[in-house]
Amino acid sequence: MPATSHIEKHFTASESVRDVVIGMADGLTVPFALAAGLSAAVQSTDVIVTAGLAEVVAGAIAMGLGGYLAARTDAEHYAAEESRENYEIENIRAREIKEVETLFRGYGLEGNALQNVVNAIASDRKRWIDFMMRFELGLERPDPKRAPVSAATIGGSYIVGGLIPLIPYMLVRDIATALQISIIATGLALLCFGAIKGQFTGVNKLRSALQTLLVGGLAAGAAYWLAHLFG
Amino acid sequence: MPATSHIEKHFTASESVRDVVIGMADGLTVPFALAAGLSAAVQSTDVIVTAGLAEVVAGAIAMGLGGYLAARTDAEHYAAEESRENYEIENIRAREIKEVETLFRGYGLEGNALQNVVNAIASDRKRWIDFMMRFELGLERPDPKRAPVSAATIGGSYIVGGLIPLIPYMLVRDIATALQISIIATGLALLCFGAIKGQFTGVNKLRSALQTLLVGGLAAGAAYWLAHLFG
Repeated sequence: MPATSHIEKHFTASESVRDVVIGMADGLTVPFALAAGLSAAVQSTDVIVTAGLAEVVAGAIAMGLGGYLAARTDAEHYAAEESRENYEIENIRAREIKEVETLFRGYGLEGNALQNVVNAIASDRKRWIDFMMRFELGLERPDPKRAPVSAATIGGSYIVGGLIPLIPYMLVRDIATALQISIIATGLALLCFGAIKGQFTGVNKLRSALQTLLVGGLAAGAAYWLAHLFG
Repeated sequence: MPATSHIEKHFTASESVRDVVIGMADGLTVPFALAAGLSAAVQSTDVIVTAGLAEVVAGAIAMGLGGYLAARTDAEHYAAEESRENYEIENIRAREIKEVETLFRGYGLEGNALQNVVNAIASDRKRWIDFMMRFELGLERPDPKRAPVSAATIGGSYIVGGLIPLIPYMLVRDIATALQISIIATGLALLCFGAIKGQFTGVNKLRSALQTLLVGGLAAGAAYWLAHLFG
């Protein structure tokens, strides 16, 4: 068995894939639902296209900048916790040692074996901090370059996803026809997107495709019903 | 020093707070930006209210169900990885032992001390699996009840956030006046929300408040500009 097989089997969605999924899931759903909803309430595709594009740009910026700030907050949170661990190892060393002991006692270590592990980890400050960050707090060091890439990926995916339901309203002037084409185009896109998402998250592809279609359909149905009430 | 102080110092946003933040960040931003954008393009507050409510319900469903499915996927992913670790411990035990060894060698353990730790962890199958899940894969056991609660929290927060910018358009028929009230009300809400978010994520409250306001303002400005071009 090749050495890489183990890693491949445990493959989970990379952060970029996760960002595409975050952006596209909402991008395919909300502008589609908004346009479908407005189809029940207005007389001109112009209003639908204007509202749809305003929503797409607002959503892309809100989600993209939101992702940027979240990634930055993660990095700051990590740095703050790291310097706190450093401070604690410096100033309340005895209690930090106890924390490592407690952790390994939970895995059945006792006596000399326990002391050996704790001494080994505590012998190197940098390693000790790394251990506490990972195993006590469950934090992984974030990639400092991730924030802008994450923002662009989420925002771009939202725009790509959001244009699919809107293009029919740009090309066809009859609202009912445009709505039908938008439903078919977006339905297919949701199915494909759901299947690809399933592939990356390890969920059954068919189920993921149908679930994604269902979310889009429910959102659009509710928006249509609400706009119909008010329109 | 009381026993809880250490936990409190390391306090990070709970999952419910995170869900409120996810829902409200977008809820306060996107409907506000959409309404502001449409103010530049349409002649009636009715269209703005209809489009805004359609967006709010679509966004709440898309984000809420998205959160539901994400929480479910996390739980399934954990279960799948857990049964894989179980299989590997059963069938390729020698390699799993090596993985534990490698992990502790990275923390400076050698010889007998290393063997003692590895033996202790490998002596109890359940504990061993738990160890691999947490320390090799970095996965924590998800709470099975989280999915529906997460969905309702995200969706509800989106609706609460989204109604704030829309209410002025429901009460005032003059678009320019409604837009001004909406900007002031949403601006204040974004500042408060940003400050509270800063409190929970450990970021400076003033900076978090201004950042949140900036995201909302940029999204609304871009939507306004785009709708103005097309309207």
